[in-house]
Parts: sequence; structure tokens; C-alpha cells
Amino acid sequence: MSATPGPGARRVTIGVDFGTESGRVLLLDLNSGAELAVVEIRYPHGVLDTTLPGGGTTLPPDTALQDPADYLEVLYRGIPEALRDGAVGPEEVVGLGIDFTACTVLPVTGEGTPLCQLDAWKGHPDAWVKLWKHHSAQPIADRLNAVALDRSEGFLSRYGGRLSSEWYFPKLIETWQRDRALYDAMDAFVEATDWVVWQLTGSLVRASCTAGYKACWSAETGLPPRAFFEAAYPGFPDPADKLGTTFAPPGAPAGTLRGDVAARLGLGPDVAVAVGNVDSFVSAPGAGVVAPGVFLMVVGTSICDLVVDEREILMPGITGVVKDGIVPGLFGYEAGQAAVGDMFAWYGDRLLGLGDRDPGGGNWYRELEGAAERLAPGASGLVALDWWNGNRTILGDADLSGVIAGLTLATTPAEIYRALLESVAFGTRRIIENFSEHGIALGEVVACGGIAERSALMMQLLADVTGLAVTIPDSSLIPARGAALFGAVAAGSARGGYDDVGRAVAELAPASSRRYEPVPARRVAYDALYAVFSALHDAFGRDHVGWLHQLKQIRREALAGRA
Amino acid sequence: MSATPGPGARRVTIGVDFGTESGRVLLLDLNSGAELAVVEIRYPHGVLDTTLPGGGTTLPPDTALQDPADYLEVLYRGIPEALRDGAVGPEEVVGLGIDFTACTVLPVTGEGTPLCQLDAWKGHPDAWVKLWKHHSAQPIADRLNAVALDRSEGFLSRYGGRLSSEWYFPKLIETWQRDRALYDAMDAFVEATDWVVWQLTGSLVRASCTAGYKACWSAETGLPPRAFFEAAYPGFPDPADKLGTTFAPPGAPAGTLRGDVAARLGLGPDVAVAVGNVDSFVSAPGAGVVAPGVFLMVVGTSICDLVVDEREILMPGITGVVKDGIVPGLFGYEAGQAAVGDMFAWYGDRLLGLGDRDPGGGNWYRELEGAAERLAPGASGLVALDWWNGNRTILGDADLSGVIAGLTLATTPAEIYRALLESVAFGTRRIIENFSEHGIALGEVVACGGIAERSALMMQLLADVTGLAVTIPDSSLIPARGAALFGAVAAGSARGGYDDVGRAVAELAPASSRRYEPVPARRVAYDALYAVFSALHDAFGRDHVGWLHQLKQIRREALAGRA
Repeated sequence: MSATPGPGARRVTIGVDFGTESGRVLLLDLNSGAELAVVEIRYPHGVLDTTLPGGGTTLPPDTALQDPADYLEVLYRGIPEALRDGAVGPEEVVGLGIDFTACTVLPVTGEGTPLCQLDAWKGHPDAWVKLWKHHSAQPIADRLNAVALDRSEGFLSRYGGRLSSEWYFPKLIETWQRDRALYDAMDAFVEATDWVVWQLTGSLVRASCTAGYKACWSAETGLPPRAFFEAAYPGFPDPADKLGTTFAPPGAPAGTLRGDVAARLGLGPDVAVAVGNVDSFVSAPGAGVVAPGVFLMVVGTSICDLVVDEREILMPGITGVVKDGIVPGLFGYEAGQAAVGDMFAWYGDRLLGLGDRDPGGGNWYRELEGAAERLAPGASGLVALDWWNGNRTILGDADLSGVIAGLTLATTPAEIYRALLESVAFGTRRIIENFSEHGIALGEVVACGGIAERSALMMQLLADVTGLAVTIPDSSLIPARGAALFGAVAAGSARGGYDDVGRAVAELAPASSRRYEPVPARRVAYDALYAVFSALHDAFGRDHVGWLHQLKQIRREALAGRA
Repeated sequence: MSATPGPGARRVTIGVDFGTESGRVLLLDLNSGAELAVVEIRYPHGVLDTTLPGGGTTLPPDTALQDPADYLEVLYRGIPEALRDGAVGPEEVVGLGIDFTACTVLPVTGEGTPLCQLDAWKGHPDAWVKLWKHHSAQPIADRLNAVALDRSEGFLSRYGGRLSSEWYFPKLIETWQRDRALYDAMDAFVEATDWVVWQLTGSLVRASCTAGYKACWSAETGLPPRAFFEAAYPGFPDPADKLGTTFAPPGAPAGTLRGDVAARLGLGPDVAVAVGNVDSFVSAPGAGVVAPGVFLMVVGTSICDLVVDEREILMPGITGVVKDGIVPGLFGYEAGQAAVGDMFAWYGDRLLGLGDRDPGGGNWYRELEGAAERLAPGASGLVALDWWNGNRTILGDADLSGVIAGLTLATTPAEIYRALLESVAFGTRRIIENFSEHGIALGEVVACGGIAERSALMMQLLADVTGLAVTIPDSSLIPARGAALFGAVAAGSARGGYDDVGRAVAELAPASSRRYEPVPARRVAYDALYAVFSALHDAFGRDHVGWLHQLKQIRREALAGRA
């Protein structure tokens, strides 16, 4: 059983990052900041979007479920393998933190057993984990938004004026609507990040950050009033029934490892386990960004932007602002763009079919990006609105869609590719300007995630378009690194960790691997293009929002008519 | 020497269609309407857009020249070959008519010798034929438009309020500006259609239709006033100096074949030769369309629309209206869309690269069109503005460019292809509505040209979107058939032809090979999509025309900065 490590002994913390298709385990050396091992375990069942495991039950459209047993597989296979790879002994490990996609939620019994693991319920789709991108509750979100707006509900202002269909209550009300018996049978409807921590420690400690960003809870005012839910869905019970009322901030200890679990993991039982967290949010300490004035971008399939500030400024055009939501003691702001890496992949794989022509697979972007990089700013005459998956912020409108303007007979594939990259940069500039217009000035950009690693052109465009330097932290896995730091904070300094995340970051912020400076000569062209982008943004996204909404509506009717 | 054919003898007329890359000879049996032979001869020098023949002189951007000797090659090789193919004897041929691209013009001596065939001038780019798509005079057209608008010149109203850079005076003033010695050395600057007729008959008879549509001449008011040219280009001489002042209507006889020419062609010398004509305009009689109420579309690389009416209605949104311009006795209206077949080719060949993957070449569209045809109207959620080459009518703005709206991660290549076809149909509906808004009601559509033959989907979409039946005349070469009819009219009934084109058309209009009826069930979706198209059309083309103009300007500056 590991006691507090002696002076000079190696201290190690574990971060586990639960993504959409796999989980990744990272071991971080607290003395040197070195990343000792990384192990990725793919979920055996992946994303369930057509049928339930075992076959039989066909799932409705826009369904995205998971099997919670897959998460434990990541722990039980991944952690022992990482310990072997890193040659780390159990006595060296002081803490463990996890991060998760969110809002990813499941119904459980009072003992924490998922309802999908019970024979009585395993044939019910609502018994399984509803993944963040489970979108079939959109009509419920629409109704909640309409009623909240109608009642001028104050909580809306913390969410840029709009709730997402991906969040907690749309998913819970969906179950209440279509499977009342299952709703009544569950004791709780918990975030997967809280459920995994529960499995590790044996006790349920819910995180404040998911409650804040996904369930409209605030430390000051609690949950939205019952009258709001009653107005939208008469008869819906107390919203706290399945959510609970007590939440712990990031980095708080949830407990230590259960003895049997510790044995299976190859760890000692007094390893501190941090409260569960969210993949985007842990990226802030993971990247070393815990101070105001920095714009942190997690650039992958989509973009998640994070900003911290001492002040709570209620502003439109953000996903949400939550006290202690990202790091304790500060207000955490979230914003983002809904289609980034997947828009580029759509263009190369789905439209141009380059994946089919490249048996190596997935490397087509290098050639396209090389050709795009050789173009002068503005030379394509193109501008695009990056709304292939709707607009997350500043408009918060999932029924918007993408636009390309300026096409001619001379337009080349590389020009369109560059226009798509530029559209992301213009969208980012718009978000940064929205922060500054509401009093939060941002002086630099830190970017992490797959696209930040892969696309030097995207990063340079972000610098050129925003006029801010962009730095890339040197880490193989920023979210897991952040989760690991929270594990060390949960342990506390007395047990070889840290007493607060600020101190942990100060000692363990990763170095910058690359830095992109804005090139002043490109400013004139990008300011001119951005003016056109902004005009189109406001025309399509605000003044004439019916144009794109009408196209979605015509599409829905056409597909319904054919079905 | 052929006398008037006896009763029952076969009477044949020849039509020669001079296109951009080749000329085509058609022999038409006036007794049966049968097409006896078609021969295509490619121009040996094609389009000169990089250097002059013999090398040496490099051509400026936006230059498109031709060698007039190529046109004679079409006659001297094509006509004898067609006579052999059709087993037609010289005594059977009563008339010959030609049609040409326009405005395609060349400088000549008083004897009709092209200046490019003289050693003194052959190194000068302006000595060659300036092809219709020679675009380097755009700045001159811009200035003429600005001055005409400023002076409220009445002639502008016959051209929808805007002159094109492709027309006569921009091309002539360009020569006057940059090669004054050559300007002074030419005796005339003639349409190629008139020049070829001159070579056939030995005398210069200029056509009224090119003077009317391309040189702003009208039978009532003559040319634009000298004061207009003086205001725009001080010192520019009398515009009639190189153009002339006397013009003959379509179908008028220009003369008979010169003896030496007849011998080389294998024809008798008293074959009647019609006044020169234009490829789009001869399509009206060629297709059998010479009555009001019919919308004739020549659908190829671009679309030329033709309408005839008893009334002269001065309206915006057309290319021009000219008395006797299409058929004698009626006002001929021209409108059109600037990018059609070449926009589809851009999509398949240039963007998707399908041509490279299809070694057969050029057949990729069948698969794409098949997939597009299986989609329900509106199911793509896309709408496009078909302005890949600017907007010809109703906006008359070459600095507009294409737009696609409604793109999502689920958008497929076939959906975009269908959206491009639909955008052409929406543009057509807008043109038809512009006619009806100004008092010219149109009750049916007749379509000919390459795309009309090739794309059943495009034709069905035209029917579904406009709500009008679309018929396709059964002919292998509508323009040459029209030119041949004018040759028979030039001969007159006394010599086995016809006394007017109406009579010729009544007897020889081709049958319909196919007819596309609008499908009522598609009307709701297309009305809804057309409403979005119209809103975007007016926003991008009128209310916020700066959006796309600014993109062109940014592009020009970027390319200039790089050069």
C-alpha cells in the first residue's frame, strides 16, 4: 500500500480520456512533466446507432448510444498496460483523473448498475448510454427553448440564449416521454464521467461542471424552476429527482480506489480519484491555460473554445458560462464551431472521393493542403460560411447550413479547400470579437487537438485572420494530461500531488512545440474577405435566417414525402 | 448551270454553321425535310489565345483570336464532302446560308483581304479575327456603359440597359486605342459572317441582325450618336467609318456564288447565297419557332434564349431587342444564361476530377445524372445561383459569381450536381417571368443544342420548374438547318426555294423528338425552392451586389500583387 512518496521519489498521476470511439490512458511524471506512457483502447461496441447489442431492436434515426461496460474495459485493460509500458510501479502513482465526452448520460439503479445490464431493460434503447451526439431529442430542445424564451427565464442568459438538444434535460425528458416505466425504474440519470468515477471509488460524487454546462445548474440559483418544466412538459417530475442537488468542483477528491478495483488495475487502494470531468474543459489545464486573456481552442472534428475570467459576464454568442466550470475560482466560458475536421473530411472524402483514390487512406489532405498553401490570400475570390453542421456559436442555430460564394469556371479544388479552412478562421475571429465586444479581451491563442497537430496551414490562417499569435503545446494528449493533473490535485500536496490546479499548471504546463505569428502583409486581404464573411454571416444567420431554415424545412418535407 | 428545277425534282439547300472550334455543313432536302448529310471540319488553328500562328507574338490575357483562312477551309473541304456523302448533284442545290458566332469580327482592306494575311500586319494581334469570347475590351465596355448611363442614351433601353464587352464597339475601340496605325489601315471592321458571304459572292452585304444586336444599330434611329462616342473616347472617329450604314435583313439574298468559288465547291454559279446570320438566331427557324408565345432555348456551353413578338417592348433584363433581328417582320428578343454546359463540365471534370478517372472521357455525367435523377425535389436542401460565368440576363453583370447554399456533412456529389442543374432551371424561370412581367406571355418552351440532346434530367427540370412543356426538335443540327432555310429563302420560290421564312418554316419545321411535361406533384417543392432562389438572386444580384463584386475585386488585387 503506497504511503506518501519520499522526497525525490518519482510521483506519477494517471489521466484517462474517454472519447467517442475509444479511451486513452496517459501516465504523467509529476517531477519532470514527462509523458511516460499512452495506451489507446477502442470501445468494443463503438457507437450504437442502428441496433442494440445482440441484435433485434432497431434504433430510431438520430440515435447514438453506448455500452457502459466498454468504459470499464478501457480502465481494466488500459491502465495495467500503461503501467507496464511506462515501467511505473503502483507505489509511484498518487492520483487518477478522468475526462469524458458530455453530455453523455445513463440511467442507473441506486447501486450504480446501468439499467441496460438488467435483463428487464436491456431491450429498451433508453436504458443505454445516450452519447453526446444522440440528437433525437431536438424537438424537445426546441420546445424548452421556446418556453424559456416566452417566460424570460433568467438561466438562459448563461447559455448564450439557447439550450442544445445534446444536453441533459432533452435527453431525460425524451426517456420520460417514450419509456415512462424505464424512467420510473431508474434511481438516477448520471453523466458517464460520474458513473465511471463511482465505479472506481464506490461512491457517487457528481461533477459541477457537467451540471453547470449541461443541466443548467448554478451554484447560486440551483436548477431552472419547476414551473418552467411544468409549462413545457406538464407532469414532468422534479428535475432534481434523477439529477441530484449536490455537485463537486473540478479537482475535488471523489474518494480513493475501491480495493477490488485497485487490485484489478494493478494499483494501490489509496490512489486519489478526482471528480469526473469533461474532455474539452480539462484541456485548459492540460495545455497550461488557466489565466484570463488566452483563447484556448481544441481543434478536432469540431472546435471547442475555452476562456476563463474573474468576472461573470452574461453575453450572447457563447455555449455557456459556469463558475468553477473549468478551473476552480474562475468563471469558465465555452464557445465553439460545429464542423471543422469533419467538414474537411467531407470535402476530401465524400465530395472529391480522394479517400477512394488513395489506398493508403487519409493522406490526401497533404497534397490538397500543399496546393492550398501556395495560393495568395484572396486569390480564390471565394468565401464560405462554415456551417456544414449548423452554427454552434455565436449564433447557436443547428438549422443553419454551409454556403460557398464566389465560384467561377476557374475555381480549383485547392481553392475551395483553402476557402473552407479560411471559413473556420473567420468563424473563430467572429467568436473572439464577440468576447471582446462584451468586455473580455483576448491576447493570444493556444490550440490543441488533432487538426492543430496536423494542419500547419489551418494554424497559420488562424494567426493571419485573427491577428493573434497561435501556439501549440507539446503534448501527445492534452485532455488526458489535464485529467491527470486533476488526479494529482485530488491527491493533494501532502500525498505527493498539488493543492490546487493553478500550482499544478505552473509546474507542469507543457512547452510550446510550435508558434504561428500573424503575417502583417496578409492583413489587408483578410480584413477585406472577413468583411464579406461578416456580411454573409449576418445576412444568412440573422437578418434573413429564413433562407437556410427554409432549405432545411423543404428537405425534411421531401424526405418525409419519400419515406 | 442549274436552271430552276422542274416539278418533282429534288431541291436541296446548304446550311453552314460556324462554331467556336469547328464548322458544320448540312444538306437539307426541301421536298422531304430530310437531313441528307452532315460534315464537321475542325478549324486547323482553333482558338488563338496564347501566341499568334508562326509563334513569336505572345498574346495578352483574355485574348481569343482566330484565323479567317480556317473558315474557307470549312467551305472548300466540307461542302464537296457533304455533296458526296449525300449523293447530291450540283443541279439540285438552290441556295446556301451560313450562320456564325457573333460578335466575331476582323479588319479588312477594301477588297476584303484580312489584314492578318498581309505581311505588314500579320504580327499584330488586332489584325486577326476577334472571336466572340475575346474579353480584353471589358474596361472599354465598362466605360461605354458608364457614359451611356450618364447621358441617358436611349439606345441602351434596347439592350436591357447594358452593353457587353463581347460586342462590336468595345472590340473596335480596343484596336483604335492600342494599334492606331492598324485602325487607320483597315477599310472595314466586318463580322466574320459577312466576310464569309463576301468571299462566296464577291460583294460585301452586311447583315442587320449583327448590326442590331452587336453594334447598337437600329433601322429607325441608326447608330448611337457621335457625341456619345466623343464623350467616352474623345477623338474616336465616326462609328460608321468601319461599320458601314446599310444592312440587309435575314433571308435577303446577298448574291450568287462567284464562278471560281462555285467551281472549287463543286456547285453551279447561280446558287443563291443568303445574307450572313448568327448561330443562335438561325436556331429559331431551324427549330420551327417563328411565332410569338414560344420560348426557344439554345442550351449548350451557355444558354441563348429567343422570343419573337409583333411589339417592341423596351424592358430591362434582356440582351437586346432588334426589329427583323430573328425573322423578318417581327421584333426579336434575346436573353440568356452565361454558364450551363461549361458549369456542369467544371463540376465533373475540374472539381471532382471525374474525367481523369474515366479513360473513355466525358461519360462521367451519365452516372452522376442517374444518381441525381433518383433524388426527390428539395431533398438535397441545396440551392445555387448559376453565376459561374457571371449573369447574362436578367442582371447583365459579368462580375457576379456562383453561390451554393445549404451544404451539410450529409451532402453528396449527386445532390450538388442536381442543385447546379436546378439553378439553371430557376434562372430560366426568372427570365421567363421577366418577359411576362413586361407583357410578353410565354406558353411553351422549345429547347435545342447539346445539353437538350444529352440531358433528359435538365429538360425535365426545366419543365417542372417553369411549369411549361418542353419539346425537343428532331434535328441533328438546328443552327445549320436554320441557315439552310435562309439559303432557300434567298433563292426564292421562282428558283425552287421560298419567298419568306415563315412559309419555309411552315413546310419544313422539324418534328418533335421528345416532349417533357411538368409533373404537378413536384410543383410545391420547386415553388418553395424557387422562392429561396429568388431571394438569394435579388440579395446577391441587386440589394447587396457588393458582396460578390468585392470578392472579384479582392481576387484581382491578390493576383496583381502576386504577379
